[in-house]
Amino acid sequence: MGKQKLAIGIDIGGTNIELAWVSPEGKYIKHHSYPTNSFPELPNVINALGDYILEQNQLLDEYDIIGIGIGAPNGNYYKGTIEFAPNLNWEGVLPLVDLFKKKTGLPTCLTNDANAAAYAEMIFGKAQNVKNFAVITLGTGLGSGIVVNGQMLYGHTGFAGELGHTVVIENGRPCGCGKKGCLETYVSATAIVKTMNELFIHSKAESLLSNLEKIEAKDVAIAAEKGDSLALQAFDYTAKILSLQLSDFIALFSPEVIYLSGGLAKSHQILLPLINKYLNQDVLRIFKNTTSVEASQFVDSNSGVIGAAAFAFQELGKN
Amino acid sequence: MGKQKLAIGIDIGGTNIELAWVSPEGKYIKHHSYPTNSFPELPNVINALGDYILEQNQLLDEYDIIGIGIGAPNGNYYKGTIEFAPNLNWEGVLPLVDLFKKKTGLPTCLTNDANAAAYAEMIFGKAQNVKNFAVITLGTGLGSGIVVNGQMLYGHTGFAGELGHTVVIENGRPCGCGKKGCLETYVSATAIVKTMNELFIHSKAESLLSNLEKIEAKDVAIAAEKGDSLALQAFDYTAKILSLQLSDFIALFSPEVIYLSGGLAKSHQILLPLINKYLNQDVLRIFKNTTSVEASQFVDSNSGVIGAAAFAFQELGKN
Repeated sequence: MGKQKLAIGIDIGGTNIELAWVSPEGKYIKHHSYPTNSFPELPNVINALGDYILEQNQLLDEYDIIGIGIGAPNGNYYKGTIEFAPNLNWEGVLPLVDLFKKKTGLPTCLTNDANAAAYAEMIFGKAQNVKNFAVITLGTGLGSGIVVNGQMLYGHTGFAGELGHTVVIENGRPCGCGKKGCLETYVSATAIVKTMNELFIHSKAESLLSNLEKIEAKDVAIAAEKGDSLALQAFDYTAKILSLQLSDFIALFSPEVIYLSGGLAKSHQILLPLINKYLNQDVLRIFKNTTSVEASQFVDSNSGVIGAAAFAFQELGKN
Repeated sequence: MGKQKLAIGIDIGGTNIELAWVSPEGKYIKHHSYPTNSFPELPNVINALGDYILEQNQLLDEYDIIGIGIGAPNGNYYKGTIEFAPNLNWEGVLPLVDLFKKKTGLPTCLTNDANAAAYAEMIFGKAQNVKNFAVITLGTGLGSGIVVNGQMLYGHTGFAGELGHTVVIENGRPCGCGKKGCLETYVSATAIVKTMNELFIHSKAESLLSNLEKIEAKDVAIAAEKGDSLALQAFDYTAKILSLQLSDFIALFSPEVIYLSGGLAKSHQILLPLINKYLNQDVLRIFKNTTSVEASQFVDSNSGVIGAAAFAFQELGKN
C-alpha cells in the first residue's frame, strides 16, 4: 500500500490567505492563516507560503503530497493567473502557478474562488453524486461555480460563470465592474445592507436597526431572525431579485441543485422558502420543480481552502 | 473496407417534416419532405415515415445505415419524447424514439431542434474545431443549442438551453410561454415584425413598408437592404436587445463563437455589425473581444435535417 495522499489548498481572499494540507476525506492535517495585507507585494506571498510549504512537507514525509491547488478572485484556470482582482493590492496579471511551481517544485493549479467552492461541494460536499449543479457564493459580491456534466464550466477564456455580473435590473444599481444593475449589487452581503438602507428611507415602519449608525449584513440577519419586519422585507426583496435571475439561469443550465454558500447564505432558513416561492412563480413551465435550491454543506464554514484542496485532488490526483 | 455509413435525419417542424439519408461528409443521398399538417395524428407520421424508411433502406443496401436522428421542437434527449410542443397538432408527451424504434427496428435518438442546428455546426459546419460555442436560431421563435467542452448542454432535465425564454425586458412583450419580456418576443422573425409595427405607430418617418397591409420579416429585411430608415431602425433595436442578453450569456458561458441561424439571420450583413457594436459596449471587461458572433454555415439553407443526421452520427456512430 502506498502513502496516504494529501493536497495543499491555498485560498486567497481580500482579508485572509488560508493554507491547509487536506486528506482525501476533506480533513485538515495542518492549517495556517495569514492576513492578506501582511504581503505588500506578490513575491512576499510566494516566498512566505513557499518556504512554509517546503518546511512542513519535510515534517509530513509519511504522506504523498500531490501538489497545490489555489482558489483566488479573478483566477484564470487556463493561464494559472490572477487578473485585475479588484479586492487585492497586487495589480495586473499575476502568474501565480508559475511562481509557486518554481518556488516549491510542486505541481500547482489555480481556479476562481467560486469555482473552488463548487469543487468543495463536488468532492467533499452534497454534490458528490450530482452531475449538473451550481454553487453561488453570497459574500462581498456574488460568485458562481457552474458544473455541467460533472465538469467545471470554464468556457473559452477560463472566466465563465460570472453570474454576479449578469444584469438583473436595467439601469439599476452601479456595480464595481462599471456596469449597472448587476445581480451582485442586489444579492450579496454588501447588497442587503444597501437594500436595508433604502427601506429606511422609503418606509415608516419601526425597525430594530433604525438606531444603528452603520449596519452590516449580519445585523440585518439577526434582526430578521427576531422577526423585524423591515429586515424581513430586505430578505424578501433579495430573494425576489435572485429568483428572477435564477429562473433565467435554470432555463439555460437546467441544474439539478443550486447550492448557496457564503456569509449571506447563513440565513438560509429565511432565504430558501422565499426563493422557492418566487422561483415557482418565475420559472418556465417545463422547469417547474426540477431544480432544488439548498444550503451548501459548507454554509457555516469557509469552503475556500477545502475547495482549493478539492480542486487539487480533481486536477492533479489523476497523475 | 466496410460499407459507407449513412445516417437518417428527421426534422420535425411546424410546417414541414424533412427526411434525409446523409453521408458522413454531410451530403444528401436521398431527401424527402412532407407537409406537417398532412398527418392529423402522430401514428400517421410513424407509419408513413417508417414505411418509407424501410422501403428505401432496402434500395440502399450498399450502405451501412447507422440509425435515425430526430430534431424536434420541445424534444427531450433523455426521454426521447416531444413534450407539449406549441407549434405541433399532436398533443401531450409523445414517445417518438420508442415508436420509431418499434416501427423500423433502427437505433433512434432525438434532440431539440436548436440542438440539432448546433450538431450541424459541430459535425459539418464552422464549429468542427470549436469546443465552446452556441447556435442561436432566429425563426418563428428563438432557439439555442449550447456546446460546452465539446458536449451538448442538456442539464438535469434534457431541456437546458432555453435562451429564447430568458427575460430581457421586465414586464415586456407577452410571450407564448406565459411569461413577459422573453428574448424571443424581441429577437426573432416574428418579433421584428412587431417591432416594425410599433415603429410605424411611434415614428413619422416614411417607409417603403408603410403601405403594405400585412408585413413579414422578409419584407423588413428587403426594405433594410434598400436603406429604408425605419426598417434599419427595427434591425438596430433587434440587435440592441439581443446584445443586452448576449452580454449576460457570454458572462455565463464565455463561448468562443456564437453562430446565428434561421430566417432572420439571413440578414446577417445588417445584423452582425450592429450586434458587435452593442456587444462591445455591454460586455464585461474580461470578456471584451473574446466571443465572435458569426453567421452559421447553414444560414442560407435549412440545417434541421442535416443537424438531425449529424446528431445521429454523434450519438449512434460510436456503436
